[in-house]
This record gives sequence, C-alpha cells and structure tokens, in this order.
Amino acid sequence: MTRTIDLVADLGEGFGPWSMGDDAALLDILTSANVACGFHAGDPRIMDQTVRACRQRGVGIGAHPSFPDLQGFGRRDMGLTAEEVRTDVLYQFGALQAIATFHGAKISHLAPHGRLGNLVAVREDYADAVATAAWRLDPELIVLAQDGKLADAARAAGLRVGIVGIADRAYEDDGTLVRRTEPGAVIHDAEEIRRRTVRMVVDGVIESRNGVPIPVACDTVLVHGDTAGAVVLAQQIRDGLEAAGVVIAPLADWLE
Amino acid sequence: MTRTIDLVADLGEGFGPWSMGDDAALLDILTSANVACGFHAGDPRIMDQTVRACRQRGVGIGAHPSFPDLQGFGRRDMGLTAEEVRTDVLYQFGALQAIATFHGAKISHLAPHGRLGNLVAVREDYADAVATAAWRLDPELIVLAQDGKLADAARAAGLRVGIVGIADRAYEDDGTLVRRTEPGAVIHDAEEIRRRTVRMVVDGVIESRNGVPIPVACDTVLVHGDTAGAVVLAQQIRDGLEAAGVVIAPLADWLE
Amino acid sequence: MTRTIDLVADLGEGFGPWSMGDDAALLDILTSANVACGFHAGDPRIMDQTVRACRQRGVGIGAHPSFPDLQGFGRRDMGLTAEEVRTDVLYQFGALQAIATFHGAKISHLAPHGRLGNLVAVREDYADAVATAAWRLDPELIVLAQDGKLADAARAAGLRVGIVGIADRAYEDDGTLVRRTEPGAVIHDAEEIRRRTVRMVVDGVIESRNGVPIPVACDTVLVHGDTAGAVVLAQQIRDGLEAAGVVIAPLADWLE
Amino acid sequence: MTRTIDLVADLGEGFGPWSMGDDAALLDILTSANVACGFHAGDPRIMDQTVRACRQRGVGIGAHPSFPDLQGFGRRDMGLTAEEVRTDVLYQFGALQAIATFHGAKISHLAPHGRLGNLVAVREDYADAVATAAWRLDPELIVLAQDGKLADAARAAGLRVGIVGIADRAYEDDGTLVRRTEPGAVIHDAEEIRRRTVRMVVDGVIESRNGVPIPVACDTVLVHGDTAGAVVLAQQIRDGLEAAGVVIAPLADWLE
Repeated sequence: MTRTIDLVADLGEGFGPWSMGDDAALLDILTSANVACGFHAGDPRIMDQTVRACRQRGVGIGAHPSFPDLQGFGRRDMGLTAEEVRTDVLYQFGALQAIATFHGAKISHLAPHGRLGNLVAVREDYADAVATAAWRLDPELIVLAQDGKLADAARAAGLRVGIVGIADRAYEDDGTLVRRTEPGAVIHDAEEIRRRTVRMVVDGVIESRNGVPIPVACDTVLVHGDTAGAVVLAQQIRDGLEAAGVVIAPLADWLE
Repeated sequence: MTRTIDLVADLGEGFGPWSMGDDAALLDILTSANVACGFHAGDPRIMDQTVRACRQRGVGIGAHPSFPDLQGFGRRDMGLTAEEVRTDVLYQFGALQAIATFHGAKISHLAPHGRLGNLVAVREDYADAVATAAWRLDPELIVLAQDGKLADAARAAGLRVGIVGIADRAYEDDGTLVRRTEPGAVIHDAEEIRRRTVRMVVDGVIESRNGVPIPVACDTVLVHGDTAGAVVLAQQIRDGLEAAGVVIAPLADWLE
Repeated sequence: MTRTIDLVADLGEGFGPWSMGDDAALLDILTSANVACGFHAGDPRIMDQTVRACRQRGVGIGAHPSFPDLQGFGRRDMGLTAEEVRTDVLYQFGALQAIATFHGAKISHLAPHGRLGNLVAVREDYADAVATAAWRLDPELIVLAQDGKLADAARAAGLRVGIVGIADRAYEDDGTLVRRTEPGAVIHDAEEIRRRTVRMVVDGVIESRNGVPIPVACDTVLVHGDTAGAVVLAQQIRDGLEAAGVVIAPLADWLE
Repeated sequence: MTRTIDLVADLGEGFGPWSMGDDAALLDILTSANVACGFHAGDPRIMDQTVRACRQRGVGIGAHPSFPDLQGFGRRDMGLTAEEVRTDVLYQFGALQAIATFHGAKISHLAPHGRLGNLVAVREDYADAVATAAWRLDPELIVLAQDGKLADAARAAGLRVGIVGIADRAYEDDGTLVRRTEPGAVIHDAEEIRRRTVRMVVDGVIESRNGVPIPVACDTVLVHGDTAGAVVLAQQIRDGLEAAGVVIAPLADWLE
C-alpha cells in the first residue's frame, strides 16, 4: 500500500517592508502552507500575494492564526480568555478566507501559530474555542495539530485532524519531546532529519534518544522556512520521501 | 404606493476598553448597521457582540471597512494605492463575515467608512477596487454609497446599490452639499432634520438653502450614533417616517 | 504635627477619538497625575494636552508606563522578559518626558500601570528593571508603589518611594488585601471610603474586614477617575481630608 | 585647509523578529546614525541595542522620527496636522533620548524619516513644528536636512543645521534633483557614486546630467544600508573620502 503525506511550512511571515524566509522557493516543494493572518506576521498585501501563489501552484491554503502580538511574533503567552481566542481566530480566518475567495480559492486547513499552537494542545478551553470556531466556519475544514487537546476537540466536533509529524526534535522513551532547554533537543543535521522523516512517514516510527522505537502518527510533515538552509533541507526531505515511494499530495485531497 | 426605507447607523465603534455611542438603544430603532471591522474602530470582541445583537433583532449587518487608522478613526487620507484599498477591504470584510458565520448570519451590505467613504465617491481606482472586491466576495451584496464613482462601479459590476440619503446637511441649488466649512452646512435642529428626512423619503425631494426643491434618491437614511441626543433624534426620524406611512425594513428585504 | 498627603489619579487614558473619565474635573482635585504613555492608553496629542493641563494647575506629572497592550488596556500578563520591561519603560517615560520638556515641565514620579503595576510588586526581576531604569533616568524621581518588590528595589537604588494608600479595598487581618474574587473585596460606599481614607492618612490605620486595626503607610491616595461618580467621590475624599486638618500637596514638594 | 565630513545612515530599522540591513558592519564605517524610533521601524529592544552599539563605537546618535506608519515604513503621506507632527516628533525623540540616557549617551541630531523628511522640506507648518520641538528639547541639537523649509526654520530658531549631501541622484542644471520617475534619476554605479561624493565634499560641486557643475553644500553624506552591496559601497565612499584627505568625524564634534 502506498503511503501518502503532506508537506507544510509557515508562509507569508513578513510584514510591511520586512520579509522572512524564501517563500517562492518553498512553494515549489510544499503541498500545503500555513499562511500568517496579520496578528503575528503578514498583512493584507502579503496575504494576497501568498494566497495567489499557493493557488497558482496547487498548494493547500491554511489559516495560521496567532495571538495578537506582532512585536513578539506570537511567541508570548498573552493571558487571553478563551472568548478572546475564539473571536481572534474567527477574525483572522475570515480575513484570509475573503482574500482566498477573491482569488477563487478556499481555505483547506487551520493551524494555530506559535504560543497559541502550544497552548491549544494543553488548554481545553482554548482547544474547544478553536474547534468550535472551525466547525462553524466550515465542517470540511482540516485542523492541523499534534496529539493533544485541540486534536481531541476537533475530532469530537466532527472535524478531520491532520497530525503534524515532528522529525527534527529528540524524543524521550515515553514518546514525549525532549524539552528544548536540554542539550540535543533539536536536531540540526540535515541528513539525520531526512532519515528520521522517512522512517516516521513510511514506518510510523521515530527513534527516541535512547534508541527506542516510538510509534508516531503523521499526516503532514512540518518543514521550516526561516532558517539558513531551510529550502535545501525541505527539498532533501521531499526527495527522501519520494525516493522511498511516498506520494506527496495536499492533505485535502486524501485525508479521511 | 407605499414607500419603503432602511434606517442605518455606524455601530460597534468602540475599541478595547473604550466605547462610543449607545449601540443597544440604536439597535431598537435601526434596520441596518454598519459594523466597524477593526481598522478605525472595533475589535474581535466588539464585532462579535455587535453581530450577535444585530442577528437577535433582525438588523441587517454591513461591513464598514476603513483605512488602517485607529488613532485617526479612519478620517485621514493615508495615501494608499488602490491595491492596498482592495486588500484592506477584503481583509476587513472577511473578518466580519467569519464572525457573522459563527452566529449563523450573513453580511448584507458593504459601506466604506470615513475618509475612504469620501474618496470612493471621487476616485475611480478606489471605487473599482471596492466594487471588484465586493462582487467577488458575494454578488448578492448591497453596496451603500452616495451618488458617485463607487455607486457607478458597483452598478457596472452588477451589484445592487443602496443610496444613502443625507437630510442633516444643507444643499446648494445644484444639488451638491454645502461645504462643511461654511456656516449652516450642518443642520442641528432635530425637528428640521425629521421634517427634511420625511420629505426626502416620501417625495424624493430636499430643499436647498435658497428654498429650491432638489430631487434626491434615498434607499437608506443614515442616522448618527455618537453625539448627544443621537438616540432621541434617531427615534424621532423613525417616528416621523412611520407617521408618514413609510414602511421601515432592512434593505436586503426589498432593494432591487 | 500636620499630616501632608498627595492625591493622585490615572489621567489621559483616552486614545484617538475615545475618551475615558473626566480629566478636567479631576485636575481641580488632584495634586498628582499618573499620565498614560501610549502603550495601554494615551497618544501623543492626549499626552500633550494632559501635561499642559497638569502644568497649568500645578499638578505633579507622573509617567504611567504599561505593557504594550492597547486592546487589553494593560491588564493582561504578556509574558515579557525583564529586558522588555526595562526598555518599554524607558521608551514610555522618555516619550512623556519630551512632551513635558516642551511645556517647561518635568516628570516628578513613575507609577507602573495595571498588570505591570501588580507584577513589579512581586517579581524581583521586573522590580529591578524598573528601579534601575528610573534611577538612571533621574535619581530625583519618586517611584509610586505599594509595599513590595518595586518599593524595595527603588529604595535600594536610592530613590524616594511614595507609598500608595488603598482605602476602597477590604483587608484581611494580616494586612493583605481581600482577593477581588471574594464578595466584599471592593468597597463601593462613598461615605465608607471617605471615612477609611481619612483614618488611613491621619492615623496610619485601616480596619480589616473583621474589625482589626491594620497599620498602613500612605504617602499618596489613589482616587479613581473612570467610574460613574468618580469625580464626586474624589472631591469627598479631598474634603474629608481637609476637614481633618490634612494638608494636600504634590508629593515632590514634601516627600523625603 | 582640511575638509571634515560626517557619514550617516539609517540604523535600527528592524521590528520585532524582522531585521533590515547590516547595522553591525555599517557601524564600523559611519560617524553618525539616524536611529528609528518605533513609528516606521524600530522597537524598544532594537533602539536599546542600536544606541548601545553607537555609544560603544563613538557613532553620533540621531533621532529619526516618522509618521506613525509601521506597515508603510513611513513612506505614505498620512495627512497629519502640524500639531500631530509636533507631538509625534516629541514622543519619538523622547523615547530614544531616555534609552540614550540609560546608556550614558545623548542624542546629537534629529533627522525626519521618509515622507515626513520630504514634507518638512516643503511644508512650512511641518518645518516650524519640528524646529520648535527640536529647539525646546535641546538648543544644542543639530537638525539634519537638505536645503528647504526645515533647514530655514531650524536656523531661524538658532539651531545648527547639518546639510545632507546626496551623491547618488542625478541633478538638473538648476540644481534640483531629477525626478525619480525619470530614467537615470538614481545612480547605481558604485565607482560613479564614490567619485561624485568625493567631488561634492572636496569641491562643493556636483555635476548635472548635462555636465554642468552645480554648487552644493554638504555636512554629512547619507549612505544607504538596506540594499545589496550597501556596506561595500559605504566603505568605498569612506575610503574615497579618506584618500582625498577628507577627515571623517561626527557632526557634533565640528559643526558650527
């Protein structure tokens, strides 16, 4: 049986005169994009250009809402209520959706950004707020998440969930990620990341830092776009997956 | 033949801890609302509350996009390109639409705010940008405007146009408004405004400052919400119209 | 021996088209003002007008810096680093100082706003950041605070500290404030507040909710400006203090 | 007689996670810096780092205030009143000054950014607003400007003016700049720019596009920091000037 996978990265993360990452190059490698919606990055012009480029290349368009924190790039916990999260997510999703509508496109998925993305995995009130908003916006929407509260809430609401696979982080034997503060938590070696990604996708297994094989789900592989060598690494990951016989296609085309 | 008219005001024009006007009282008088979308006023919470309240009372929900100018309340010409206007309008419309969708509602009309509202009447590039955006967002959308470039562009695009009647401004004999800098340009007397509104709606006529009757179109009467006595005046206008046998109903229910 | 006290309130807390409280009326009652610096409220025009009005009436001008959170009015913990607090406080203080300089005035005190004000009382890193910034800006500056980390750090830096007395909150027998979530935590009765304020200032004592007298320091009494009846209550407090023989004068004139 | 000149560039023009230009490399070449103050670019952290770096290398610190337009990088005419310009300039200058004070430094000059910089040369109300603000802030301040209204107003106020020399633009025979929309308006050839700069500084002459020598004043040469090759070009200009025997030193050290 052939394995199918999606490749996703965060795009459109400039603002006004500033840019971040090489979106044009990444768009040739990806099958989905998490598009910044103006709260941590992105502005209406950048969103318009990003949506247009995704549409032209058949890359799936995802809303990438954030806490309202341009200066902090959405990385800070702002102490919002769940009601603030719900309305902020609606606002950002709609802003992107209207731009997509203008270009004859549609938002295929929703992927919370940065600290919001971390918190929806552990805070049930945030997870419910996002899942409820998503379901009312479009019951066909796919929610991107790691295993956690948001994935649970989205499934409970009847939404499809695309599990994001992480291959460039070290794992403990119990399947949790090694904390970022510990040495070796983030894997930087490109060849190692490529190898781990292929194994994660093909075999559903990732190796812990003690060499224990951990079963992991993965519907989409998150590649990074804002670091030196990001585009080259993304291409290596794609090449590695294709060499292993994996079909790379947008989530919305195949996720059940 | 019975005359039907819409009553509209700008709502949701607070921000964060600040409020403006008595929205709750106005909502009992209006049939449509221009809802601020966050660029000159409004934030996701205020938009959510305003949309919910409109939905509960059957008040038509309109997007009220602005130049991105919270500090200047959208009253300043920011020298934007038509492309910036197009993408800013899409962004704001979509943000409100998603909130409306969450509450099972739909945006019925689009009415540019403040300086943007002034400029779309005279700048063809802005008018085309807004009309094109509106048509792609929803061909059923009604565009609120005074006679001018936006009304022309919207009609040319196949959109319905709701002409906004102005009864609290003095007119020259040629039908243009007396410039604000001239004495007597704005009419403040409530009884006078009520009387002029009724005549404008019932007879399609408004009197110039020299007493010449001017033919004027009017599908919706704009009442103000942010001044002392605004609610009382709005009620008087409504009462005056009803006493004259005018039916007051949301634009979307009857405008052709 | 005559007791001298300062009366302070938060002023200039509008933004753009929005206003908050009746600053003009309060200015006739106060001896000091905490002036918003643009991060939670205030903009350069409002700051300019507020500084000018303070100068005209001999009201002491204080910088009232906040977390950068206009929408949340500085009430949310934004998870800032101490370095972010230090630089944000410098930025806001300087902005106000330049406006004061233009009007031939000087900032007399520094009083962190909202959540920042709460956190500097308990977070040593924030307290040190603020105290160090204050001392380098002006060793003559008075720091307004309740007892806590900021008061300690400011004293250690050689700065004068003006202890803010709170008379409209209930106290536990151990001198801590009753938590806001408990019933009766906030006292709303004007006569009660007036009476407690006078006792706090004259006798240095406030009564716990069980009737136990608690010794409290107080160099300045914080009156509120943004609620209904705020001006009347502020006047009652001032009248009550004067009737008790207390001299009311700006902190900078007498605090040692 | 030895000619002395200042070399200046715009620095600190990142925001939050975004950077612009290679400030560290430029700092080794410049004698002055126009430091963004948060309205078109820059935030308190970036301002703090930039001021500190200038201080360490003896580079003169200049305030670089802008219209409040982060998204448009201060390049748009926002239709502000002179009063808004005055208070916005005070706010930004003060914010930077407090950061400089923290680091034991002082602002040596003021140079309006972008569209504000263009408009102060031709709008007398803006020029007066900026010159008055500058004089009240510090009568020792140097105002950077090209010939025009701001230079006139600053001199009339008793301030020193540093004329900014422009060597990478083509000139008409009457000494005005060739409009940017015309071909050849901007000179891109590095060797040509170097040659023109040296002649402008040493001989006080620049050649028009028809070969006519135009007398030009120049106290400081503006080098650009945000384009590819900017640092190399800046170094070439510096080397060219030094080879011609020009002394390169901060304005504040020698301008009368």
